Amino acid sequence: MRAVVLAEGTLSLDTEHALPEPAQGEVLVRVLQAGICETDLQLARGYMGFQGVLGHEFVGIAEDGPLEGERVVGEINCSCGRCPTCQSGLPTHCPQRTVLGILNHEGAFADYLSLPSRNLHWVPDEIPTEQAVFVEPLAAAFQIPAQVPLSNDLKVLLLGDGRLGILCSQVIQQFGCRLTTVGKHTDKLKLLEQLGIDTIHLDDLVPARDADIVVDCTGSKTGLPLAIQCVRPRGTVVVKTTVVDDVSMNWAPLVIDELTLIGSRCGPFPEAIDALKSKQIDVQPLISASFPLDDALSAFDRARSGNALKVLLNVSNR
Amino acid sequence: MRAVVLAEGTLSLDTEHALPEPAQGEVLVRVLQAGICETDLQLARGYMGFQGVLGHEFVGIAEDGPLEGERVVGEINCSCGRCPTCQSGLPTHCPQRTVLGILNHEGAFADYLSLPSRNLHWVPDEIPTEQAVFVEPLAAAFQIPAQVPLSNDLKVLLLGDGRLGILCSQVIQQFGCRLTTVGKHTDKLKLLEQLGIDTIHLDDLVPARDADIVVDCTGSKTGLPLAIQCVRPRGTVVVKTTVVDDVSMNWAPLVIDELTLIGSRCGPFPEAIDALKSKQIDVQPLISASFPLDDALSAFDRARSGNALKVLLNVSNR
Repeated sequence: MRAVVLAEGTLSLDTEHALPEPAQGEVLVRVLQAGICETDLQLARGYMGFQGVLGHEFVGIAEDGPLEGERVVGEINCSCGRCPTCQSGLPTHCPQRTVLGILNHEGAFADYLSLPSRNLHWVPDEIPTEQAVFVEPLAAAFQIPAQVPLSNDLKVLLLGDGRLGILCSQVIQQFGCRLTTVGKHTDKLKLLEQLGIDTIHLDDLVPARDADIVVDCTGSKTGLPLAIQCVRPRGTVVVKTTVVDDVSMNWAPLVIDELTLIGSRCGPFPEAIDALKSKQIDVQPLISASFPLDDALSAFDRARSGNALKVLLNVSNR
Repeated sequence: MRAVVLAEGTLSLDTEHALPEPAQGEVLVRVLQAGICETDLQLARGYMGFQGVLGHEFVGIAEDGPLEGERVVGEINCSCGRCPTCQSGLPTHCPQRTVLGILNHEGAFADYLSLPSRNLHWVPDEIPTEQAVFVEPLAAAFQIPAQVPLSNDLKVLLLGDGRLGILCSQVIQQFGCRLTTVGKHTDKLKLLEQLGIDTIHLDDLVPARDADIVVDCTGSKTGLPLAIQCVRPRGTVVVKTTVVDDVSMNWAPLVIDELTLIGSRCGPFPEAIDALKSKQIDVQPLISASFPLDDALSAFDRARSGNALKVLLNVSNR
């Protein structure tokens, strides 16, 4: 099969890649579409030392199992189900887990992938395939209200106008918070405004230590220090994006202002599927381009460009 | 009056220091005893650029107000009471606040200090003066259960066997947690064991990412990175001590393991007074030495020595 393979720092299209062999409990999924995420770009730069087939945002057709022949999306953490962490209800933190296209598990930028049957979710007919690609990152955005109570009396500052920043902004907007999203890309800020979200350009931001919640979606080492300058005493900083490099900063404000920092990763698929089905969240404007899988390297170049939002890979139209 | 003054990085005893002039709502307090805290040592090294009379842990006699003639301890944050932060119920975070012996407010290592009347708490007769000096740092330890629910099913690792680390250990022990305190001072670890607290030497600690809660009381730049290695996924790190220098570290685990970090500063005086009155917490073994105020510089030298716990200043026996 075809697959986008990362090996020794180099990305290439392998047209004769071996089909994934489903482990016990796993089913083969024929990929229809996949999305390129900031994490993919970071992995391609060497983050986590991943080698193999990239990709974790996808829609496909289950080839087997209870959802055979149906359109599915999939949770990306593959857990053992037996260890104390899994048994305590935290399977996404299983220390033996593999992660689709991120950690010891061949990913979705390929004709086929393999995932545990229990990871798959049926995609309602109301959701077009190209929108269903957003279920995984949108679920990550819905992890914010799963971790931090959101209400309409809260002042929320969201740092980052990229792919994840816009999805998180849309989710927070659903809860009626007094939200402002900070970015540095004029076209992305314009899109946010079109979605009804207040924005401010990073150059115009004057940190005032008055936000109840600051969400860092920058993927930048300057994000967390800026967030700490913007949050009020006893406020909360939600950190959504990882940074490859070490970050040097002064921690005194964490203690003096008694801040809470919460790391936030993958989230609940059902909420994301419901939000797309009911059209509460509109992801269509986030699609910057679609490329056939055969042009995956061009798709990566496009995704790396400053003004790109979501770049899709069309794997199959069947 | 006599006062221990920090000026341009030099600590000295000023025997002709001007009496503090109480602002509106403040009362003069004649100091009986005071305690030297790690923060005092840091301030003396230049932290926060403080100049003036040091000291914020004290017992004294109120010279005026509703508690006139009574033994009192005092909360150290002096708030305006009128700003939005104060009005929202967070007076200890008032942006206009002064802090006794720490920020724009002359401190307790002197014959007299001045504090808002509402900051003062009556000391029950059951508490000896030298133990009442511990109310302020013990209140800071009681801020941990005020911020993080503690229960007997939780595995807690506490980093730091210094003054604050021992007090925090004793408070956490009250909640029946499975507590282990990590330190590097044989005599302090021995004291903790005598108090019924399990300990481990830092050299023997193998970080296993299995603690529900890790409390950093190290005052060291290595404390927070170590805490993050020890806490379980979705666990909580409580940061009690500040560090003067910037700390460089990798933040990916915060997001990947969805950790919660909570900064924790001053705490509730009533709980600390009750715990001393009822002898739930025994602070007597923490007193390493007492010096007359006239020997304050020797007292600082003693407090700086590696094996010292609390060093007291006897200001007056009247």
